[in-house]
Amino acid sequence: QVKLQNLELLHSTMHHRALVLAQLRKWLDGLRFRDAFECMRKLRINLNLIYDHNPKIFLENIETFITQLNSINHINLFLTELKEEDTTCTMYPRPESCPSQTQSVSGLKKVDVVCDALRKAMESMDPNKFCLSILTAHVKKTVPALETALQKVHELRENPPEAPGAVSAEEALKYLLFLVNVNDLYEHSLGTYDFELVLMVAERSQKDPKEYLPFLNMLKSLEPNYQRYAIDKHLKRYRKALVHLSKSGEEHFIELVQLVKEQKLYSDALRLYPAGSPQYKLLSCAYAEHLVEQQQAEQAGLLLWRCGEPARALQAFTSCSSWRNAICVAQQIPLPPDQLALLARDLAERLNEQRRYSEAALLLDQYAKDCEEAILALITGAFWEEALRLIYMHNRQDISETNLKPALLEAVSTQTGFLEAQIATFTRHRSRLAVVREQKEKARLEMLDEEGPDCPDAELYSEASSVMTASKYSQSNSRISSRSSKNRRKAERKKLSLKEGSPMEDRALMHALSEIITTIDKMREEIHSLLKALVLFQFEKQAEKLQQAYEGTLQTMEGALPEVWPEGLLSSNVTGPNSTANSIMASFQQQKPAASQQDPEIPTAPKLRNGVKWKLTILK
Amino acid sequence: QVKLQNLELLHSTMHHRALVLAQLRKWLDGLRFRDAFECMRKLRINLNLIYDHNPKIFLENIETFITQLNSINHINLFLTELKEEDTTCTMYPRPESCPSQTQSVSGLKKVDVVCDALRKAMESMDPNKFCLSILTAHVKKTVPALETALQKVHELRENPPEAPGAVSAEEALKYLLFLVNVNDLYEHSLGTYDFELVLMVAERSQKDPKEYLPFLNMLKSLEPNYQRYAIDKHLKRYRKALVHLSKSGEEHFIELVQLVKEQKLYSDALRLYPAGSPQYKLLSCAYAEHLVEQQQAEQAGLLLWRCGEPARALQAFTSCSSWRNAICVAQQIPLPPDQLALLARDLAERLNEQRRYSEAALLLDQYAKDCEEAILALITGAFWEEALRLIYMHNRQDISETNLKPALLEAVSTQTGFLEAQIATFTRHRSRLAVVREQKEKARLEMLDEEGPDCPDAELYSEASSVMTASKYSQSNSRISSRSSKNRRKAERKKLSLKEGSPMEDRALMHALSEIITTIDKMREEIHSLLKALVLFQFEKQAEKLQQAYEGTLQTMEGALPEVWPEGLLSSNVTGPNSTANSIMASFQQQKPAASQQDPEIPTAPKLRNGVKWKLTILK
Repeated sequence: QVKLQNLELLHSTMHHRALVLAQLRKWLDGLRFRDAFECMRKLRINLNLIYDHNPKIFLENIETFITQLNSINHINLFLTELKEEDTTCTMYPRPESCPSQTQSVSGLKKVDVVCDALRKAMESMDPNKFCLSILTAHVKKTVPALETALQKVHELRENPPEAPGAVSAEEALKYLLFLVNVNDLYEHSLGTYDFELVLMVAERSQKDPKEYLPFLNMLKSLEPNYQRYAIDKHLKRYRKALVHLSKSGEEHFIELVQLVKEQKLYSDALRLYPAGSPQYKLLSCAYAEHLVEQQQAEQAGLLLWRCGEPARALQAFTSCSSWRNAICVAQQIPLPPDQLALLARDLAERLNEQRRYSEAALLLDQYAKDCEEAILALITGAFWEEALRLIYMHNRQDISETNLKPALLEAVSTQTGFLEAQIATFTRHRSRLAVVREQKEKARLEMLDEEGPDCPDAELYSEASSVMTASKYSQSNSRISSRSSKNRRKAERKKLSLKEGSPMEDRALMHALSEIITTIDKMREEIHSLLKALVLFQFEKQAEKLQQAYEGTLQTMEGALPEVWPEGLLSSNVTGPNSTANSIMASFQQQKPAASQQDPEIPTAPKLRNGVKWKLTILK
Repeated sequence: QVKLQNLELLHSTMHHRALVLAQLRKWLDGLRFRDAFECMRKLRINLNLIYDHNPKIFLENIETFITQLNSINHINLFLTELKEEDTTCTMYPRPESCPSQTQSVSGLKKVDVVCDALRKAMESMDPNKFCLSILTAHVKKTVPALETALQKVHELRENPPEAPGAVSAEEALKYLLFLVNVNDLYEHSLGTYDFELVLMVAERSQKDPKEYLPFLNMLKSLEPNYQRYAIDKHLKRYRKALVHLSKSGEEHFIELVQLVKEQKLYSDALRLYPAGSPQYKLLSCAYAEHLVEQQQAEQAGLLLWRCGEPARALQAFTSCSSWRNAICVAQQIPLPPDQLALLARDLAERLNEQRRYSEAALLLDQYAKDCEEAILALITGAFWEEALRLIYMHNRQDISETNLKPALLEAVSTQTGFLEAQIATFTRHRSRLAVVREQKEKARLEMLDEEGPDCPDAELYSEASSVMTASKYSQSNSRISSRSSKNRRKAERKKLSLKEGSPMEDRALMHALSEIITTIDKMREEIHSLLKALVLFQFEKQAEKLQQAYEGTLQTMEGALPEVWPEGLLSSNVTGPNSTANSIMASFQQQKPAASQQDPEIPTAPKLRNGVKWKLTILK
């Protein structure tokens, strides 16, 4: 009997609540906030609904809301009940006929949006009257703005409002203490630099005056800027601390450098001193040291150079092969000629190691005054025309015979051999790709045959096989999924194995073919310049052989494109080898690919730069 | 009655023919060529069937065929009846149970394949016995090898075969005259350089001896090589003519140059003379002139330089801004210093016009000895580090103040303005793309709604609309279709109009967006070097502003990628906006795209080079 009664009660309650909510929605739509508010308070309905029901309308009519409530306490009640949760999704779901109104304001949190909107409205309406609600709005933000709130109290102390019924600093502080933990408030009160305010807070806390008084007295005894620095540092506000410390006199500069180093505030610190000052120089040096540790030697060099430390700048530039800057600094110092030559040789050696031969040659020629080494560097780098330029500039035609010509002939045989090797690999991959594709197609047709053409299972099958393939390989990658896209791509590459029978072998082969084509295509300029040099030195036959070999290679690549990338082939996952008409359509409608997201993409066909003319018409 | 009889006869004939063909196929499969041949001759069945029935087997058993026929006449009959047409496709279709055997031998013509195969077999079996058939095989090729046939007659005259029953030159010629038009044969007989043979042919022609005798006598009077040249030229065999003329003595060299120029045989001619000879030089100059006319001045220069014509080479190199070669040649001449400086200035001016500022600077600095102009060129080209290098090299720090610094500040404002403009266009295109896509999707859904989801007409509709779109634009392009792919791509571009409402507007917008992204991405290096220079000269604030602007732009681009190129979007025509599930599958199975071939491709998403680090850590 009792159970039945309870159930009935429950039922009627539920029915009742639905009616109430319908009424509330009507009121809110009609901007009757006061009626809604009072009803909700009485029936203990979560006040968040006032906002959640239609955030846009609430924010647009916030002054109406304040005027209708017309009570500091009610506004405070509303503010303190604010939660991030959307009550129309949780407690009070909308009826289906009523579409969702919730549109999150770009990335901001709901509680912050409402607090700030209410506070701004109240500040513009009557800052004195709404003083306590304004404090509440500061304190209730997701990260409580305690300092701002305390700043308000501080202002009330400094300029007590004259309006009748205005809140005093005393009252405001009391209210704050009611809202916030007193120890938190004490810490933040320091941030106002208002010692009386600090004392007021401290007295209301359970803190032992024997503890805080000596600290406060110590602070009081300090020079104002240094005092603020000490407080800022205590509150871990290092940027502010830095500014105050910089104002507190030269005697604290060592402490400042310490702070800058500890907190890595180099850029901020540099901004506080004029470019020519000794502090600027010292800070630049400290920054440069830090940058060198961070593998940013070139930027370190720039800082050192501009602050007037050329010797150290030179070191930094040299260490990262920033040779133009290094040479400029060296000439500014100025380094004596023999040392400049040594520096140039040192830099050239580094550049040669990095295969930056033309830059090395410039250093050797113009600064080390060693044209022979310069020419040799250019020959090594296959800069034939530039090598010839230096040969004629320094009247060293002998090097043409001793080095340039033999190097040209060697280059021909290297390039010819390279082309042959590339073509061989290309042809092997291409044939294998045809075999793999045929096998896949055969397997697909066999499966369709087994199932009969009208059997929908065929599609299921092929999707299942795709899932199986994916899961087989996804285990090892599951850890990786959260990492950067670069890592993901690396992982994709790994899956692309050229091993015969590997599940992605066709894609791996296409990838390998694409890379060969790109490599060959990139050789156009190199071959062109080699051909010209060969013609000049009467190596007509070698040039013709090379031109024919390269042309043949390019033609092989171009001719293979329609086969390797047939026109019907899709470069997206959606229509990968395992997809079906249904999966394609599904993905099309959902704007999401059907195939496993972890599958590497089918490599797209590389573009040949046929606009780059490399052939010599004077060769057959 | 008669009609009925005729019909019956026709019917029995048809029936009979089917039986005959079945028998013939059996014989041919059994390599019983003789039985097949005789039956075919009697029943007037086209002899081509012997080959067409199974080309592979015929070619593999060609000696069996010859041995079985064992008759020059029969072989000649077979050869003369050969046609390009495949009789199993036209006159004698295969029964369905018998799959097609025809596999065209890679690009070669059937008639040529059969003639050559038969000829080679007969030559290896018994060249004397099969002499006339061999001649037939030469003459019946798609391009009759008259000269080769005549050469055979010439050989018979020179070395009459001793074998009994062998064909004499006389007989062979008679046979040839029976096969070929006598005037054609006369012309080609000249090509054997055998005047008696020519006379033999001529006497059998209707030619007037008063006409040909003087010509032949004139030829006979010439020096042998010059005689052959005259004949070659008469027969338009210019390469042979050139070789014979080159052997006919120096007095004909002017005629040779004339021939080379007329027939553009420069490369061939150069090969006939040693590199140091005066003829080589003269021919090189002629070739160079021709190359300059063909806009190949650099290659012309190379030829002139290597044949010892530096002054003319210099002119050629200068005209095409091949400055390194020009300077080398100038120093080889050698040009006096003041003229070299003038040349360098001239070349630098051309390079500046082509925006090749760093090359211009090198010329101005090292050859014109005008470091100021060199530095200004580098500043114009935004080569800040290199400009600074020259400034320090020549101790011209004053230029830093007067030119470099102002240029840096100008570059900042230019770049900032450029970025703003690009972002504005980007944002406009991006919003418009969203609108266009929404409209297309809406139109698609509306169409599906109207037709009902199961109505197959919906697909027809969408395909029809795609065809309509294509035809609307194909009119103007129909002329172009046969041109090169470059032109085709140009035509595709044209179809991509950004005009609102243009049928390909979405693709045009994607194309435009892709181009902006690529442009912005390419600026990384430029911005990086500008930032470094700004920092060095204490333009910290400008550098920070630029860094922020560029970073913001890059982020906007990167952020837009998933929207502009959603993951489900396909980059192939197959699944273009107008395709359907059926068309996708159809194209998939046929390896052919369903959408119109003339549709421009959907532009693929550009790749950002995030590996290129451009940001300075020392800037905020």
